[in-house]
Formats: sequence, C-alpha cells, structure tokens
Amino acid sequence: MNNLFSLSAHSTKSPPDLDKTTTKKATEKLLTRLAELQNLINATASHSVLVVVQGMDASGKDGAIKSVFSGLNPLGLQTYSFKTPSILEAKHDFLWRVHAACPPRGIVGVFNRSHYEEVLITRTLGLVDDQKVTQHFKNINAFEQLLVDNNTIVLKFYLHVSEKEQIERLEERKTNPEKYWKHNEKDWETIQKRSLFLTYYEQIFEHCSSASPWHIVPSDHNWFKTYFIAQKTVEAIERLGLKYA
Amino acid sequence: MNNLFSLSAHSTKSPPDLDKTTTKKATEKLLTRLAELQNLINATASHSVLVVVQGMDASGKDGAIKSVFSGLNPLGLQTYSFKTPSILEAKHDFLWRVHAACPPRGIVGVFNRSHYEEVLITRTLGLVDDQKVTQHFKNINAFEQLLVDNNTIVLKFYLHVSEKEQIERLEERKTNPEKYWKHNEKDWETIQKRSLFLTYYEQIFEHCSSASPWHIVPSDHNWFKTYFIAQKTVEAIERLGLKYA
Repeated sequence: MNNLFSLSAHSTKSPPDLDKTTTKKATEKLLTRLAELQNLINATASHSVLVVVQGMDASGKDGAIKSVFSGLNPLGLQTYSFKTPSILEAKHDFLWRVHAACPPRGIVGVFNRSHYEEVLITRTLGLVDDQKVTQHFKNINAFEQLLVDNNTIVLKFYLHVSEKEQIERLEERKTNPEKYWKHNEKDWETIQKRSLFLTYYEQIFEHCSSASPWHIVPSDHNWFKTYFIAQKTVEAIERLGLKYA
Repeated sequence: MNNLFSLSAHSTKSPPDLDKTTTKKATEKLLTRLAELQNLINATASHSVLVVVQGMDASGKDGAIKSVFSGLNPLGLQTYSFKTPSILEAKHDFLWRVHAACPPRGIVGVFNRSHYEEVLITRTLGLVDDQKVTQHFKNINAFEQLLVDNNTIVLKFYLHVSEKEQIERLEERKTNPEKYWKHNEKDWETIQKRSLFLTYYEQIFEHCSSASPWHIVPSDHNWFKTYFIAQKTVEAIERLGLKYA
C-alpha cells in the first residue's frame, strides 16, 4: 500500500504567529456560536453532525471533546466512546456498532475513537492483513457516503502530537493523582509502535477522504487544538445556512 | 433509468413438468437438510445467512417464510418484518434500521420486506425522485457488499405472482375469516400500480445485483415457491462446506 500523504509535513505545534490569549478569546466566541448552531440543528432537524475524533493514546481526545462540546445542550448531543468490541459486536461487521451509534437528524454526535480503530490498533496487532484493510477502506468510504447522502455532516479530526509531548503526557499520568486512572502500562506500546501508527494513519488520510475530509489538528497545545476543532465545526455548520422556520 | 431486465420473461407458474406430490416430498428433505445446516452455521459461527423476502401485497411473503423456516431452531433464527419507519428510524439514513437488524455470525436472519421498500413503495408515493433512487442503489450495493465481506450469505427472493392470482388472494382476504385481519382497502392500490411496481422491481434487479444476486421465485403455487426458496437456501449454505470442528 503506497503512502502519498505524509504527516511529517504537518506541524504538531500551534502556528508561531498566533497569540494564546487572543486565540482563547476567539475560542470562547466560537463556542458560543457553536451552541447557537446546535440549537438550529435541533430546531430544523434537517441535518445531523457527526464529529469523529481520532488520535493515538495521550493525543488529547477526551480533553478535546470536553473542551469543545461541554457548552452544548445535552438534549441535542450524543457522544460515544468506542472500546474493544463486545462479543456480540465482534460477531457483526465492523461498522454495525458504529452505524447504530450515528446521530439522527437534529442531533450532534461525537465519536471518541471510531470505525477507524479497525484499520489502526487491530492492524498493529496483526489481526487484519493488507487485503482486509483495503476492503475495510472501501466499506468505510461507502458508509461515510451513506451518512453524507443522508444530510449528515461528517467531520473527522486527527489529533497530531509530537513524540516528546506524547511521552510527557503518558509520564504525567503516573504522577498526577487526577490522571492516574488513565495510566495503563500497555499505552507505552503505542510509543514503541508510533511510526507504525503514523504510517497507518497516513494510509487512512490517503484512502478514506472521499466522502468527508480529514482535518489534521496540531495538538501539542490544548488551547490551539480546541480553537481549531471549534472553528472547523462552526464553519461546517455555518455553510448549511440553516434558518429558523 | 433504463430497464434491461424484464419480468415478463419470467413465469409466475411452477414448471409444467414438475409433479406436485414429488416436489412436496423433495421439499420435506430440503427442510430437514436446512435444519442441519442451520445447526452447522450456529456451531461454527463463522458465517451468517440473511434471507431477504420481497414481493407485492399478497405475493405470499408471510407464507413463504412460515413454510421454509418454521422447522429451524428458533435460538439460531432471527426474523424481522419491516413496516413503516418509526419517527426515530425516519430521522436516520434508510439503512440504519436495516443494518441494526442484520444477523450476527452464527445466526440465520430473515427479512420480511427490507431496505428495498425505500426504492419501491416510497417511490410509488412520489417521496423519492430518480436521482435519490440512483443514490440509494449505490448505498444498497455498498451495504450488501459490507455484509458479504463479513461472511454473510445474502439471499434475495422476489415472489413473482400473476395479476390474476394476486387479485384472487386479495379477494380471499375479504371472505376468509382467518385471513380477514390482513385485509386492507389500501392494498388494492397495489393492483392499480402493479405495472409501476413491476418496473421498479426490474430496475432493482438490474442495478442491485452486484453484491448478491436476486432469485425470481415463480409464486403462483405455494408448493413450488416453498421448494424453490428451500432449495436455493440449502444450495447456498452447502457451498460453504462447513464442518463441525
């Protein structure tokens, strides 16, 4: 499988010319606007939004979702964290549980990890070969196209962190009592397999962008990560030009 | 949308050289074999079977499912009758509820009507235009391919009845107390729209056979319909060559 997409061309840091304080203020405005837009989504019920958040361990997925979506109305919000498939889920095709968790029209849905784990972690464990991955890519594209055809705005974010930052965060989990519950010795395997994960992610960006594009989020700085995701999400919903009837 | 497939070339009657009594005996053997094969499907849990039964009102869908699948172990059987979508279902893409009802590996699933209603009844009511139908066809093919890729044997049966037979059966519902509960004045609209339905079915056979083929079942005689479906289902499972470990 060839890689045309290169993550090394993408910075993990916030743009050097961007001021943190100014950006944080801009983020506040974006989050207020996002809540207004969610209300429009709820009210018109013509569209749904699906935000997919992917990234390696300690890339900041949980924090990103918390900081961007905490201000939304929980009645119109639906989140789902994908863990190891259950016995029943594993007896179905890999998109079965994902499809079931998709938001209906009128609702904003957020996926913490997603169907992409089937062509990432499963792959690093040697449970799927390249042929199966190619088949999965086709299935994923068709699945996302189905959602898009049904007026779902699919937004996919990859949280891009440097190895240094990733290691620091994993270390912090060991020492910070509030983060210790996230500590898992197995997560260190992600560091060992980091270049493998990066390669698999690059192949995803290359092959699974036909129905909805990927956004590579520079994620070494949380303030910029939040701003970036909020901005892209607001922009995408704004483009619909929804209005109260 | 062009029609290359013509239903008029397909008889609604059983083959003239086929003896009813002999066929019924052959059917009994097939049904015994089907129960054995279902046990193998359950035991090996490597594959699932999805039988989709489509046909116009009074084409004999309920009867076909009852006569072919009544002898199976209900623990390994899962049936679903698709009715008008619920409010929640209608807020999702049209394959959402269908995907949810698909059988896991190890299970035989039977659909009484299916996702195809979205390009049939919905179409005769003018709720979807040709462009949407073309989009649905693509979505359907990709969806069935996903199931096939996941070791699901997808068998699609269209119950082909003559107009004369269809009218007689609808009439019988009015006079037979055991069938009166099925009587619905609206069903007569199907007769008025029969040629429209036939055209839409032809387009389905033409455009939605890539992942799994359609079987046109001559259905004027119930004894032949049962034999035909049982035979095709047994054949398809036999081809897997499943064995107890």
